[in-house]
Amino acid sequence: MNQSLFIGIDGGGTKCRARLRDDRGTLLGEGSGGPSNIRLDPDLVWNSILTACREALSQAGLQESDLKSVHAGMGAAGAGQASAVERLLSRPHPFASFAIDTDAHTAWLGAFNGGDGAILILGTGSCGYGGTGGQCRYVGGWGFEISDEGSGAALGRELLRRCVWAYDGRIAYTPLSDVVLAEFKNDLEVLVDWVGTARPGDYARYAPLVFDHANRRDPLAIALIEDSARGATRIAERLLELGAPSLCLFGGLAEPLLPWMPPAIQQAVVPPQADALDGAILLARNAAARRQS
Amino acid sequence: MNQSLFIGIDGGGTKCRARLRDDRGTLLGEGSGGPSNIRLDPDLVWNSILTACREALSQAGLQESDLKSVHAGMGAAGAGQASAVERLLSRPHPFASFAIDTDAHTAWLGAFNGGDGAILILGTGSCGYGGTGGQCRYVGGWGFEISDEGSGAALGRELLRRCVWAYDGRIAYTPLSDVVLAEFKNDLEVLVDWVGTARPGDYARYAPLVFDHANRRDPLAIALIEDSARGATRIAERLLELGAPSLCLFGGLAEPLLPWMPPAIQQAVVPPQADALDGAILLARNAAARRQS
Repeated sequence: MNQSLFIGIDGGGTKCRARLRDDRGTLLGEGSGGPSNIRLDPDLVWNSILTACREALSQAGLQESDLKSVHAGMGAAGAGQASAVERLLSRPHPFASFAIDTDAHTAWLGAFNGGDGAILILGTGSCGYGGTGGQCRYVGGWGFEISDEGSGAALGRELLRRCVWAYDGRIAYTPLSDVVLAEFKNDLEVLVDWVGTARPGDYARYAPLVFDHANRRDPLAIALIEDSARGATRIAERLLELGAPSLCLFGGLAEPLLPWMPPAIQQAVVPPQADALDGAILLARNAAARRQS
Repeated sequence: MNQSLFIGIDGGGTKCRARLRDDRGTLLGEGSGGPSNIRLDPDLVWNSILTACREALSQAGLQESDLKSVHAGMGAAGAGQASAVERLLSRPHPFASFAIDTDAHTAWLGAFNGGDGAILILGTGSCGYGGTGGQCRYVGGWGFEISDEGSGAALGRELLRRCVWAYDGRIAYTPLSDVVLAEFKNDLEVLVDWVGTARPGDYARYAPLVFDHANRRDPLAIALIEDSARGATRIAERLLELGAPSLCLFGGLAEPLLPWMPPAIQQAVVPPQADALDGAILLARNAAARRQS
């Protein structure tokens, strides 16, 4: 192998994905492996990474031993935590070089090919990230309890709060609150028990129901979505204030929430140039170039 | 002993209190014991109850064997949960009769001597409770995640959320956000770690700081307290709508928050006629009277 190869890795909690390209950008192979949240045991994480990489190599007709000529880049949730990165790097890696950054960073690298811009993830959680001149920062994304405005989890939790208000007689019932309270047998003790073990993903599952009722002009659904849109808009506005000329939106709530955001935000939205795996490949290329110079 | 005696019991998570009165209402003795949250082991709870009762009896020159002539009433957090009450009552009790209800109910009984009115507890959590004609209901009090508007915990959590907004540049810094962020070394990763293990009581500890800064016209502190007051006001308004002619406020935030609530609420507030222990005594008297009739 005389040419440089680059592999992008996306390290998620349930699976790991890898994509191999040559230095002209030709796609050579893709693969996937097991859980690779870098807060997990490093041997398990490396096993998932190498499983995904082996599959990509084999599609390209290459062997695991060829990894020594491959520059790797990995985007991973938790890579903002120095201790988790150190734990992962406490094991030797088989690559020519290995660069790691957060999943938001590789999503951003892919979306703007390393150029100026910002991403706004509106999924179970929410997170803004972006910048100009290679200088990036987060806006939001600090977790369910004290952040995550505009996320599905925040929307679902606020829905349940308003259903409690309706039950208490603090606001009027609507078809949406009727449906939700009926799920809990119109018994707040049942709801309180459910909340006792609910995770963000459990709350987020209510998001489609809220959008569905908003389409039917349910006033509670509309109020909740307007609130969500305001939270997401404030994050987006701050990203634009910081100099990002345009925005890429990701996550399951991006499409339904966008029409509720103001025209200035809607007009700033552009489609991503590439995905987070290609962002991870760019991370690998940049790191390899820095090593050479 | 020819006369009837009544003992009121307040069953709390850290301690149990008891108060003994005769049928003319003369105070005969008081006592305290260990944890008596009725979700705990029933033998432990009964041990705490009897420790508190023995102390009250001994002040009255009575023996534990005299409990068979004493009607008991207990107010306890968790008594709304039928399974917890059943567990407690699976053990024999030494009283002539034993009645149990929630701590909100005994606080309400004491505050209005069983008459019409409502209580609003504004402490670490918040809870409204009251009614007319002996028919009571809750407004709020459904827990930290989806209720507890106007509580210290909700105030503290919202403070941290707004400090994140300031850090992100979504709102301006104020002296209050500066103080709080400095506690977390101006590092949101440190704040996020703290939030990961924070309990409602941990958030509530920020309440005095917020009121302190509001006195100095800090705009963030004022916005937070106005929000809190709005939440508490909506609960109070609903309690008055339900027919309560007046309100008793309890909890550490009641006094500081009241001046931020509208005049109609302030004017509805009256001092409690008696405390929750005397409410528990009234619970015991009512139960004994029903048994006789």
